[in-house]
Amino acid sequence: MSGLYAQLQVNPYGGCYLSATQLAGATTEQLTELLIELQTSPYKLCWLELAAADSALAAFLVNHGFVFHHCQASQLMLVKKLQPDAYLPLAATHTIGVGAAVLNEQGQILLVREQPLAGQAPGYWKLPGGMVEPHEHIELAAQREVKEETGIDAEFVRLISLRHHHHGQFGASNFYMVAVMQALSVDIKHDPVEIAQARWFAPTEFFSDEKASPYNKLLVEAALSGHGWDSVKVTGYRQSPELYEMFVDPAVFERRFGQ
Amino acid sequence: MSGLYAQLQVNPYGGCYLSATQLAGATTEQLTELLIELQTSPYKLCWLELAAADSALAAFLVNHGFVFHHCQASQLMLVKKLQPDAYLPLAATHTIGVGAAVLNEQGQILLVREQPLAGQAPGYWKLPGGMVEPHEHIELAAQREVKEETGIDAEFVRLISLRHHHHGQFGASNFYMVAVMQALSVDIKHDPVEIAQARWFAPTEFFSDEKASPYNKLLVEAALSGHGWDSVKVTGYRQSPELYEMFVDPAVFERRFGQ
Repeated sequence: MSGLYAQLQVNPYGGCYLSATQLAGATTEQLTELLIELQTSPYKLCWLELAAADSALAAFLVNHGFVFHHCQASQLMLVKKLQPDAYLPLAATHTIGVGAAVLNEQGQILLVREQPLAGQAPGYWKLPGGMVEPHEHIELAAQREVKEETGIDAEFVRLISLRHHHHGQFGASNFYMVAVMQALSVDIKHDPVEIAQARWFAPTEFFSDEKASPYNKLLVEAALSGHGWDSVKVTGYRQSPELYEMFVDPAVFERRFGQ
Repeated sequence: MSGLYAQLQVNPYGGCYLSATQLAGATTEQLTELLIELQTSPYKLCWLELAAADSALAAFLVNHGFVFHHCQASQLMLVKKLQPDAYLPLAATHTIGVGAAVLNEQGQILLVREQPLAGQAPGYWKLPGGMVEPHEHIELAAQREVKEETGIDAEFVRLISLRHHHHGQFGASNFYMVAVMQALSVDIKHDPVEIAQARWFAPTEFFSDEKASPYNKLLVEAALSGHGWDSVKVTGYRQSPELYEMFVDPAVFERRFGQ
């Protein structure tokens, strides 16, 4: 049994796996030996993770039937089905964006106009928002984006909508969720790089603005309605509520877990 | 100006890009020439996409400051910041799952017990569901998963909850959304590979089952409540409603777009 085969870690769906650390400095001779041993192994899938420094091995693995599965900046995961019926779990498919309908104590709503990208016409008044960073909660992402774009501090109240489309960048699909937030400050200091203008609107002024998009008007309507999904914590779900967020209609939560 | 530099495509955020087709069979000499020309170019980012057959070039690019960004089975995208303040857009960060609370005409709910993965204890009664495939709408994914797991035909009614966590496979985060569906058929034929048991439950029976999880009881409560978000189409949003799904409280939609 070769050195690499002996180090294989078992993972779900009948897979075996070697980490970038385990493969560091591996030779094509060692990989050849491993691949021969895998032919008579019980495994259904083989996952091999290459550090960027070992990229030269990628061509060898591709020539031996491996495909790319997912990557980080300095690591590339390749996978090979050892049995044709093996279930191959999906890598990440979606980017996530979050918008915020921030209301102040006067019932006004915070809207921005983004700086146009090169060669594009300026956009019109819309909700502030942006991309959710890796491993960031939606509630915190909404707070961060509002602060970055407008300088306003705000706290999460509830989710009011969800949009799903398949024309995102890099072949990824996109979810865009929108939260209602309560403003905790008043004075706007917009980010001049990303945002051209930011100001508080009376909802009636925004609704009568013919240039504003019907979609953004729907979101403001939803923000004012009081409808939406609260962030709830279900006792006994996972070890720690910090590990997840869960959103549902508050009346439903009350009916099941209230007094 | 080298052959590769002349073929550069401009893309958003000040980037330039060569496709896998443009780079097919490129030599390290050609890439060296390109990298020298990029040093005095106006571009902020350089994206180079390698076909699997050109994987041997990955090591060269990594040695010259490129990092992995995203991949498909047979294509790998590498990127380099040419200016240190360049904005690098995120690749996909999330996998998406969908569960379905399928109700029949008797008000019963369809629940399944999954076959355990190797080395794991059998799970308990829960909603059917699974992963959303690349470029699949949530409504269709819910329908497909219910059909695959239980043989039941069902149609989407509304979304009732959303869960977000960061302990998914491969370092990805996960969104799990749950839909209420109306059953269009009665006879269950469960998938024996993935599902150990499937049957219709009276909600009262499920609610009094001490082994059922509080989270799944919350979802059944939400399914019965009539609360949730409908799939809506906003006139004038995008060219075609087939390109996106949009979910919001139906009362809000009615208030804005109703008669």
